[in-house]
This record gives sequence, C-alpha cells and structure tokens, in this order.
Amino acid sequence: MSALDGLSINLATVREQFNLAQAVDACVKQGLRAVAPWRDQVQAAGLKEAAAMVRANGLRVTGLCRGGMFPAADEAGRAAAIEDNKRAIDEACALGADCLVLVVGGLAKGSKDIAAARQMVADGIGATLDYARANRMKLAIEPLHPMYAADRACINTLEQALDVCDVLGDGLGVAIDAYHVWWDPKLAEQIARAGAGGRIFAHHICDWLVPTRDLLLDRGMMGDGVIDLRGMRRMIEEAGFKGPQEVEIFSAENWWKKPGDQVIATCIERYRSECLL
Amino acid sequence: MSALDGLSINLATVREQFNLAQAVDACVKQGLRAVAPWRDQVQAAGLKEAAAMVRANGLRVTGLCRGGMFPAADEAGRAAAIEDNKRAIDEACALGADCLVLVVGGLAKGSKDIAAARQMVADGIGATLDYARANRMKLAIEPLHPMYAADRACINTLEQALDVCDVLGDGLGVAIDAYHVWWDPKLAEQIARAGAGGRIFAHHICDWLVPTRDLLLDRGMMGDGVIDLRGMRRMIEEAGFKGPQEVEIFSAENWWKKPGDQVIATCIERYRSECLL
Repeated sequence: MSALDGLSINLATVREQFNLAQAVDACVKQGLRAVAPWRDQVQAAGLKEAAAMVRANGLRVTGLCRGGMFPAADEAGRAAAIEDNKRAIDEACALGADCLVLVVGGLAKGSKDIAAARQMVADGIGATLDYARANRMKLAIEPLHPMYAADRACINTLEQALDVCDVLGDGLGVAIDAYHVWWDPKLAEQIARAGAGGRIFAHHICDWLVPTRDLLLDRGMMGDGVIDLRGMRRMIEEAGFKGPQEVEIFSAENWWKKPGDQVIATCIERYRSECLL
Repeated sequence: MSALDGLSINLATVREQFNLAQAVDACVKQGLRAVAPWRDQVQAAGLKEAAAMVRANGLRVTGLCRGGMFPAADEAGRAAAIEDNKRAIDEACALGADCLVLVVGGLAKGSKDIAAARQMVADGIGATLDYARANRMKLAIEPLHPMYAADRACINTLEQALDVCDVLGDGLGVAIDAYHVWWDPKLAEQIARAGAGGRIFAHHICDWLVPTRDLLLDRGMMGDGVIDLRGMRRMIEEAGFKGPQEVEIFSAENWWKKPGDQVIATCIERYRSECLL
C-alpha cells in the first residue's frame, strides 16, 4: 500500500476551482486514490457520469456529503427531509461510497428549543435507517462544532452522537472531523468508545486557525493551526479505524483562492508531514 | 425586592461608551443595584476609588472579571499567572465582589497539547485556591464556548469545570454564561449537579445570534438570538441559585456603538421580557 492510499480529498476543498470532473482528474494526476464529493457537485455532473468517473479511475469514495438537516417547523418539512435523505442514500450507493455523512441540522426555523431539534434528528435518522440498511449504506453522523448548534447541526459532541447510535442500532456510526471535536475534553474516551462499537466510518482533517476569522469559511490546512492531528489519528487507529484521512477545508479567503492543483499538492505534503503516523 | 434586584450589568457591555464612574452612574440612575466590572476598568479608576463608588452607591458586585489565564510556555510564566491571580483576589475583596471569575486560558504559546494546558489550569487554580479561601473570595470557573479553546479557555463544558471543582474542593465553583453553554446536550444535568454541590456562583446572560459574524465580538442582546434564556434560568433557580442575572455583551458593531444609557435601558427591558421568571 502506498502512503497516499491513506489520504482522501473531500472535494469541497477545491469547490471554487474545479467541477467534479476537473477535481477528480486533478486528484488522480497527483496519485490520489480516494475522494469524497458533495451532492451538489455530483448533481452538476450527473449521477451516472459521476459514478462512471469514480469507476473508471478506480477511486474509493470515502463518503458522500451530505444527508441530514432533519429538523423543520412542520411535519411536511420533516417528511421532505426524510425523503431527501433516502435520495442521498441512493446517490451514495450509486457512487459506491463508504458512507453517507449526516450533518443533522440545527434549530427548526423560528424555534429556540434545541431539545426538540435533537428529538427531530433522532426521529429523522430512525425513519431513514431501515432504508439505509436495506441498501447496505452506512450512515455517519458528523458531530459539528458547538458553534454550529443553531444553524447546522445540533449534535455537537462524539458522546452525544454515540448515544444516538446506541439507541438506533446497526448501520449508524460517526464521521470524526478533527475541526469539530479537537477541543472535546472527552475526546480520547469517546473515540475509544466509537471504535469499540465499530462505529467509526470516516475521519476528516483540517486545522483550527488562531485567530479564526469566520465561523464557517476559515478552516486551516493541516499544520497551520493548533490541532494535534497526529495524536488524534493515533487514537483513531488504536480504536480500529484504518481508513483514509479525508481533507476537508472550507477557506473562502485563502485556499479557495489558490490554484486547485497547488491546494491538492499542499494537502499531500501536509498529510505526510503532519498527519501520517 | 424590586424586579431589578435580579439584574446586574457586566460593565464590559458599555466599555466603549463609559469609564467606570460613568458606567456606575448610568446604572444607578436607571435603578440598578448590581454591576460587575473588569479589572482594567477598576485599574483605570483606581482600586480605592472604585471600591468607594461601589459602597457609596450601595451596589452589589456580582463578580470581578477576570482571573485565570494560567497556561504559559515556561515555569516563570505560570508562576507569574498565579501571582496575578492573587492580586485579582485582593481586588475582588476590596470591591466586595461575590466571586472572582476565572477565564482559565487556552493553549500555552506554541503548544498543541490541550491536555497539558488543562493540567496547567488545574495546577494554577490549585496553587491559588488557598489564598482565595484565606481571603474568603470564591473563585468561579467560567467554562467558555469550545470556539475559545485554543486562545481563551480550555475548560469548555460545565461537566469539565465541575470535574475540576470536585478534585480541588471548597471555594471553587462556576459562572454559568448562557452564551458559552446553551448548546450543551448535558446542560440540564450539569446545572443540577452544580447546584447540588453549591457551586453556582454567577449567571451571565446575552444571546447567540444567527448568523454570528465574529467569534468574540458579535454577542446578542437577550431576545435577539436563539437561546432559551428563561428555560435556562429556570434550571438555574431550581438548582438553587437565586442571584442576579448578569448581562455581558461584547458587540463591536452594534451595542458598543450605541449610547450607553440606551444600551442599559435595553438590557433592563429585555431582562423583563425575556429572562425574568
């Protein structure tokens, strides 16, 4: 196995530079063997065409981003979210993805009731999970950083995600993104718990910059911030997950403004210098 | 007891408009009976003068902001932080404050080791606590939102703060700031735990805006965001803390640009409409 088999590029990292075909070509050209696309990128390319690109290049798809967004102000909205998640499962299957990543959604519109949002998330995942199981597609809850609790995801720690997994059962696990969980005082313990349950489905990486200038779009390249990425990888491998580390960087003012080939080259270089055990 | 006895103004809320004397006058003029100053405001006024203002106006001081900032790259830096915390205790005593609020500090300069930072915090509080006890000044750990873990405070949940309190013992408790903890899936359980241990020393309020445009200086006035402030207050009172709710708003682009009297009037109005049980 070459070192690069341990690296995947989440294509949001070059979303401003490349469409899906260009991004796949750029990754393959630099020797990468795994990618993770977003649904809008797949839709723009066409699902069949996207699946054909993946197969033709022998690529592993470490996840499809993203399902989730379950809370809604009314029953019709919640039902529509569940239907949309089933379509996302279909797409993940067509691409042969390792998992469908769930960004579960924040508060319902106009609501301040985060407990209710969390219940809607559990209900929504529960209503989607049989379909996922029937299609043999794993669902990976991605706990997001607490700064996204209101508007993106009300599952904000690994512990909380794993509690949902324990209730809902097989076929459900977690995507562990260093950016979202690095601060968690219970990180080591909850990674071990996730591994013991066979629930680690993906490992995302980037870095936390100091200062961080934007809540969403100022994520850093590995090595430019303060996360002990190698230490976290060690915990994850010891917990039993050996799959690729997937670089996902939203960076409006920096990496999204650089040439895509340079960004991918930097991901490879930093993966080797900062992340590889 | 008038309704306003349940409200305190943290003077950071009007720091761009008023010096200490002006802020105290403005609060008293509108019928307030409690404030919480910052050390730089007290220093600019002079400690004796500040203490005299508090006494002359019969004000309750719900906390002095702030001690903490324990991690440092070397032993000399850590020792200096402990000495500085002892001076902060002296100042809190001179003002007759309910507690000294601790913003514990983030990663030591150049470090990615958050576990080490957390140990430095526990060691630093431990080295300060006897002095606090001898002077009968309570120390209140303020768990900060996880988005400040790197640069301001590596204690990021109530559970984590209370674990430190359990180890270090009497005289140590928590300041529960709605902005920092509202997202926490374990909030109700940990507020109850804090109350059962007699460890709730302060309750800060403001609101989480959607969107939030700056990690530090875009906090909202109560009612303008998504926090269920009345629900959280109910938890806190049921846990046994009946002290004032202390408004602390850092808002560079909005409230800091409005006339200070208007800001204080709005705090009173929103306290009544959004926070009072």
